[in-house]
Amino acid sequence: MGRVTQRRKVIRVRDGHVSSRPDTLVAEEPLEIRLNGKPLAITMRTPGDDFALAAGFLVSEGVLGAAAELQNIVYCAGATQDGSNTYNVVDVRTAPGVVLPDITLERNVYTTSSCGLCGKASLDAVRTTARFPISDTPPVRLEPEVLASLPDRLRDRQRVFDRTGGLHAAALFDEEGNLLDVREDVGRHNAVDKLVGRALREGGLPLSRSVLMVSGRASFELAQKAVMAGIPVLAAVSAPSSLAVDLAAETGLTLIGFLRGSSMNVYAGEHRVALRAAAAH
Amino acid sequence: MGRVTQRRKVIRVRDGHVSSRPDTLVAEEPLEIRLNGKPLAITMRTPGDDFALAAGFLVSEGVLGAAAELQNIVYCAGATQDGSNTYNVVDVRTAPGVVLPDITLERNVYTTSSCGLCGKASLDAVRTTARFPISDTPPVRLEPEVLASLPDRLRDRQRVFDRTGGLHAAALFDEEGNLLDVREDVGRHNAVDKLVGRALREGGLPLSRSVLMVSGRASFELAQKAVMAGIPVLAAVSAPSSLAVDLAAETGLTLIGFLRGSSMNVYAGEHRVALRAAAAH
Repeated sequence: MGRVTQRRKVIRVRDGHVSSRPDTLVAEEPLEIRLNGKPLAITMRTPGDDFALAAGFLVSEGVLGAAAELQNIVYCAGATQDGSNTYNVVDVRTAPGVVLPDITLERNVYTTSSCGLCGKASLDAVRTTARFPISDTPPVRLEPEVLASLPDRLRDRQRVFDRTGGLHAAALFDEEGNLLDVREDVGRHNAVDKLVGRALREGGLPLSRSVLMVSGRASFELAQKAVMAGIPVLAAVSAPSSLAVDLAAETGLTLIGFLRGSSMNVYAGEHRVALRAAAAH
Repeated sequence: MGRVTQRRKVIRVRDGHVSSRPDTLVAEEPLEIRLNGKPLAITMRTPGDDFALAAGFLVSEGVLGAAAELQNIVYCAGATQDGSNTYNVVDVRTAPGVVLPDITLERNVYTTSSCGLCGKASLDAVRTTARFPISDTPPVRLEPEVLASLPDRLRDRQRVFDRTGGLHAAALFDEEGNLLDVREDVGRHNAVDKLVGRALREGGLPLSRSVLMVSGRASFELAQKAVMAGIPVLAAVSAPSSLAVDLAAETGLTLIGFLRGSSMNVYAGEHRVALRAAAAH
């Protein structure tokens, strides 16, 4: 795993007993993402899958939508004064002819809105930059039993979490609940970007038959990333925010929260969940 | 609580039973922070304590260190085309004579480093911008029993979390474990900024006798915020990252993780925890 974890000395206190030992921690390092040589963003991430992270970030921002738009991704040597490579700076080069949106160093999707800064502006920005409609031909249709099985399937694959307890996880499943890919990162948004970026590079966007499952809460930002990748279903172990629900309702995303055991809350897009009418009361 | 929570319809599935009802969700909205009229950052936050959030953000970024440096904070009317106030844009005006660091729209602390982008650059940036040394005159000294009581005391005060399950919490305690202040937010960094910003506005910086407790993991960013506010102890319910531990070791911050029941891990600054030598083995 190399740079994914690091060892540090820790003093453990257990019921008054004190001991000192090495502990395994999740690694956190900054990554600078450049677009055609121009610095665009810095994120604190767990090293690994850096090219996927950068590509997925650019999908989320509406810059990339297809593998053909990507020329290559490289680590920048010469990022330091002595010219050495820290492997913490990546440059994404777009293919000739790709028109870049006017993105600035801040999260422009909010500030360029004409209605000022409000929740509605955030929703509008996603809708106008989304490259893929959420497909319903035919609709993805998920059995509640399949949905209920996803948290355990995700948990079984959180390998680094098991050793460090310090990671968020995100996974893609198909309609039958088969795990397609899983990524872990100190930042939940990074884990999703790594999934989406890998799909982009393999020509797999939009992810129109996939379920995105996240280990924590469903924020606006995670719902945005699902929409931008054309993912029809976002399921979270914990609560969604108001703005995540609003974005799901507006874009047609199915949003499921508190997915635990045989229970779940469906906040939007319930037509993709096979709820038995007989049980509705 | 007003804008802190919102109501949305939810379809609940419990062991095959389906019902529809209103649900309480944590509110999430964008906040634009301006410094002397210039847009500086946008964060997705839970509305409320916005002035404290903006002030605390500027403490974390090394812009502010004392109440006297702050002239006033206002919501920007005219943020929209029709001149109405969304209460999502705040302008922080500094007092005459305050010298502003060269901050840009990105997280400049990393990119201005001369050693390129690496973990060490992140540590150096915090050390060079920190306004307060972590004080040890005399050292804060915490009984393990006091530390063990903090998670329950925090949990008792997570009022919005109880209704929504969707919030991170951060709290300040004194050396005896008395709760001084608590804030909840969809973003864990926002909860800490709200605590620090309130302290700044009340003339309470540096927070040199306080313990900062967070409900989740201890990332580099949270350790940075503790250091910038002069807080000597950061305690987290979950795991720290490697870079958070490195920053604590370098700056003298006491970093405690996995604080649960009578157990905890001390990753740095153990001289502030009253560990019985007799129990060390």
